[in-house]
Amino acid sequence: MARIAVVAGDGIGPEVVGEARKVVDAVLPGVEVTEYDLGAARYHRTGEVLPDSVLAELAGHDAILLGAVGDPTVPPGVLERGLLLKLRFAFDQYVNLRPSRLWPGVTSPLAAVKPGEVDLVVVREGTEGLYAGAGGALHRGTPAEIATEESLNTRHGVERVIRDAFARAARRERRKVTLVHKTNVLTHAGSLWSRTFEAVAAEHPDIATEYQHVDAAAMFLVTQPQRYDVVVTDNLFGDILTDIAAAVTGGIGLAASGSINPDGAYPSMFEPVHGSAPDIAGRGVADPVAAVLSAALLLDQLGHADAAARITAAVSAELAARGPEVAVRTAEVGDRIAAQAAG
Amino acid sequence: MARIAVVAGDGIGPEVVGEARKVVDAVLPGVEVTEYDLGAARYHRTGEVLPDSVLAELAGHDAILLGAVGDPTVPPGVLERGLLLKLRFAFDQYVNLRPSRLWPGVTSPLAAVKPGEVDLVVVREGTEGLYAGAGGALHRGTPAEIATEESLNTRHGVERVIRDAFARAARRERRKVTLVHKTNVLTHAGSLWSRTFEAVAAEHPDIATEYQHVDAAAMFLVTQPQRYDVVVTDNLFGDILTDIAAAVTGGIGLAASGSINPDGAYPSMFEPVHGSAPDIAGRGVADPVAAVLSAALLLDQLGHADAAARITAAVSAELAARGPEVAVRTAEVGDRIAAQAAG
Ligand SMILES: CC(C)[C@H](C(=O)O)[C@@H](O)C(=O)O
Ligand SMILES: CC(C)[C@H](C(=O)O)[C@@H](O)C(=O)O
Repeated sequence: MARIAVVAGDGIGPEVVGEARKVVDAVLPGVEVTEYDLGAARYHRTGEVLPDSVLAELAGHDAILLGAVGDPTVPPGVLERGLLLKLRFAFDQYVNLRPSRLWPGVTSPLAAVKPGEVDLVVVREGTEGLYAGAGGALHRGTPAEIATEESLNTRHGVERVIRDAFARAARRERRKVTLVHKTNVLTHAGSLWSRTFEAVAAEHPDIATEYQHVDAAAMFLVTQPQRYDVVVTDNLFGDILTDIAAAVTGGIGLAASGSINPDGAYPSMFEPVHGSAPDIAGRGVADPVAAVLSAALLLDQLGHADAAARITAAVSAELAARGPEVAVRTAEVGDRIAAQAAG
Repeated sequence: MARIAVVAGDGIGPEVVGEARKVVDAVLPGVEVTEYDLGAARYHRTGEVLPDSVLAELAGHDAILLGAVGDPTVPPGVLERGLLLKLRFAFDQYVNLRPSRLWPGVTSPLAAVKPGEVDLVVVREGTEGLYAGAGGALHRGTPAEIATEESLNTRHGVERVIRDAFARAARRERRKVTLVHKTNVLTHAGSLWSRTFEAVAAEHPDIATEYQHVDAAAMFLVTQPQRYDVVVTDNLFGDILTDIAAAVTGGIGLAASGSINPDGAYPSMFEPVHGSAPDIAGRGVADPVAAVLSAALLLDQLGHADAAARITAAVSAELAARGPEVAVRTAEVGDRIAAQAAG
């Protein structure tokens, strides 16, 4: 049976992860769970972010379910670079998978978009680009200060994530991949991404392709999100585009994600796109849907496609029944989805 | 009288710039115009993008009005880096100004947003960041290829654009500046931007400030564009955010921009945010409003605030009268705005 590491984290993390576990137990009893205490609380208590010993233990699991880490009291970057990105990079999670669907019962902020019309997935590169941590500063704090950030892109890294995007498109109905970059300005990385995209596309004559600059894609996600099927893009562009995609499909309260190592050499990690939301933490009002859907992605990745599909169907039923503007009670939502998914 | 260089450019550029000139002539007769033939057509004819002699001539003008450059037949980057960005950098146009208003009569794709509710301006840094052209490739075309893009940020460059943003906020009603960056990942540049922002903010206790990560800002531009007044951000984030802002306020057909050298040492350049739209070029159906509004920004920059205000009011009247979904006739729109602005 699957062995899962759970990092509930900070803020609403423990609340929403609790419901996700409830749902997983309902569809697949017997999953082994080990809890890891990581995040802002541990950092404040011990100064530790991600001890090597914990990293090694996590590596021994089949997958990681993460709630949310972060708190305004921790300086920017400490938990992001030290924990979240550290895990993505250490476990070579090069496919950052972010599906966006406009579910029945959910109202898009876009007037012209109806449930069922948006069903896209962004395949965001997860181990390169501006997230590599390359950069520095000189003359810090003086009028002569310069600060650099470097985007590192390899053929190795670009090709594998593009291949993953085409493989996913081949399993979907519309069979279309959109490459998003900024080839007209970032000419070196843009050229690498374009050439690699064209090479992989040539092996998939049955899959439609298009290219868009990131600014145009950001615009079209607002005016015509229906047009996208699979979108493949770099780490930073993917970060921005997936928040737009989440916004037009009902908000990050519903957005799930997976940081996947498709080779299976390391555990993949699944987490809601939302943060720790300290303002509403502890009140039992956070929507657990994003965490529950992330757990479904996790089960799917571990080969439990059927259990994953049952969770997804239960979420769909929950959202359809809920109607717009309802006040969410975290535990009740989890109970209903668990009951429905258990069937 | 003002001496303006006009680069009509490619595609719909000449059509929309023609109307912008018509309107300028109507409100401020006697503006001296020199036309420059630059863009895809010239590149194909002569191989030249921006000869040094032309750059020197342009420098002798008070401002530049640009239509659009670019064509699918030119490799990505050639005209962007060689012409558009070359001008922005050579003329130290460090304030890339992009106002977004939801005009009366214009329907936002966002169901909850009504005309008059969105009135924001993005002050995008124009001479640094990932646009600096720093980067390269190694082992190009082989499996070992790496490609880099470097974001260069200086205290000098960051401080001057942030100062400009605060100065603009001080002249507006809501007096609020939002800094957008990605400080939790791009820690070096993010720290420089944050510290500089805080230092300048301390000199403006009467101006409200906030910080948002770029992914959150992209989301809030879709869910709550009303919340923004002045947004200051780096070159690439500004590129993406201004297309979202344009999308939620009726599309890039209405979005104007200025690449401004506030010191006046070099000419500033004004252009619609839209591109050359080769698919509709030559048919007289392009909306000239973005070009006309860009001309208004130009006149405002040159000290003709009154003429600029008359153009803006005429555009507002045109859009209010037009109603949604109307088929645009380029020359008729220009005629009506010119007549109205001439008063
Ligand atoms: C918290 C942050 C480091 C992270 C990212 O930028 O990847 C988040 O925004 C996300 O999208 O998962
Ligand atoms: C054409 C391109 C170089 C340009 C940019 O990225 O700045 C455009 O998108 C813009 O926003 O003016």
